[in-house]
Amino acid sequence: MKLKLPARTVERLSKYRRLLEGYNDKEDTHIYSHHLAGMLNLTPEQVRRDLMLIGLSGNHRRGYNVRELVQMIGKTIDRKEGQRLALVGLGNLGRAVLGFIMKEGSNMNVVAVFDIDSNKVNTLISGVPCFNLDDAKPIIKRENIGIAILTVPREAAVNTATLLIQSGIKGILNFTSVHLDVPPEIYLKDYDIITSLEEIGFFIKD
Amino acid sequence: MKLKLPARTVERLSKYRRLLEGYNDKEDTHIYSHHLAGMLNLTPEQVRRDLMLIGLSGNHRRGYNVRELVQMIGKTIDRKEGQRLALVGLGNLGRAVLGFIMKEGSNMNVVAVFDIDSNKVNTLISGVPCFNLDDAKPIIKRENIGIAILTVPREAAVNTATLLIQSGIKGILNFTSVHLDVPPEIYLKDYDIITSLEEIGFFIKD
Repeated sequence: MKLKLPARTVERLSKYRRLLEGYNDKEDTHIYSHHLAGMLNLTPEQVRRDLMLIGLSGNHRRGYNVRELVQMIGKTIDRKEGQRLALVGLGNLGRAVLGFIMKEGSNMNVVAVFDIDSNKVNTLISGVPCFNLDDAKPIIKRENIGIAILTVPREAAVNTATLLIQSGIKGILNFTSVHLDVPPEIYLKDYDIITSLEEIGFFIKD
Repeated sequence: MKLKLPARTVERLSKYRRLLEGYNDKEDTHIYSHHLAGMLNLTPEQVRRDLMLIGLSGNHRRGYNVRELVQMIGKTIDRKEGQRLALVGLGNLGRAVLGFIMKEGSNMNVVAVFDIDSNKVNTLISGVPCFNLDDAKPIIKRENIGIAILTVPREAAVNTATLLIQSGIKGILNFTSVHLDVPPEIYLKDYDIITSLEEIGFFIKD
């Protein structure tokens, strides 16, 4: 059974783990909540609350065991069978995002790329096979893909998202800057670069 | 004098404008709040509240004048002198993000790229000159650059951010997946791809 956790908590757990994966090798076997909090600009109380939610409490003298912490976060937020993803739209941005994910290393397995360009279909990109978008439905089913990263041109965004959802995709990371009207059972996250830059522009001081 | 607005409102105003810039040509000169709301999955009340904040109320019979709406949003969230940006780190992701911004078209002017690779320095990328990162300070001052898009490798993230802030950068869109501990006067927005995918993975239904 999966724990019920707020999105912000999951986000922070993911960040704790990424920090600690680097930390593990070179430093102590234990870490204090205030140390972890300091690295992420949080309060120690926030960190302790998050870790309490996944069943961990620190030792007063030594803090949290780093290895145990990383394991418990994994047990909580990862799928046992691993997470299978598709990247949809192999333009420059798609290619770069794919390369970034491969280089970062994580539990995210991009197992398929989709495009409509026949020069790209049937090639390997960063070791991942590129399929024709027309074949999305059977391949997404066969490969048990749950998440799509959407990097198609804006004109294609709405139709492609509809096709992906019909093919069984449950979550979308949307880079297209196009608003997608998805059913409530689909988990959508938008990376809207222009809107984010306009937001930054508004809030910075002159 | 600049209006005080919550980040979410600025985000929505930016989205209204982007929707309406396409709408303007092909449809009516006016739009109802419920129509705008429907396109963005919001309530009409939310839309009316946002627009009221920037001094606009719709006409009961015809709704809001689209051109006036786009103008007022621009007056509210844009800088008169335009927004000047730098892209820092010209790897595949940096190149792709730059291309994306140029293609989308907006009030965001990327006027400089910075990298440390001498093969890239002194070339033009999508029409933007690439400078040596060592020269960031004088160039950011001279070019009056307020925002940096950070696409350097993770090892370089912290040091580069420090240099940019020392050079007068006020806002950062951070693609590096590395936590940056910035002073409170710096407006930071993180695009942490791995964390976002882990969040989606946690929340999608099996």
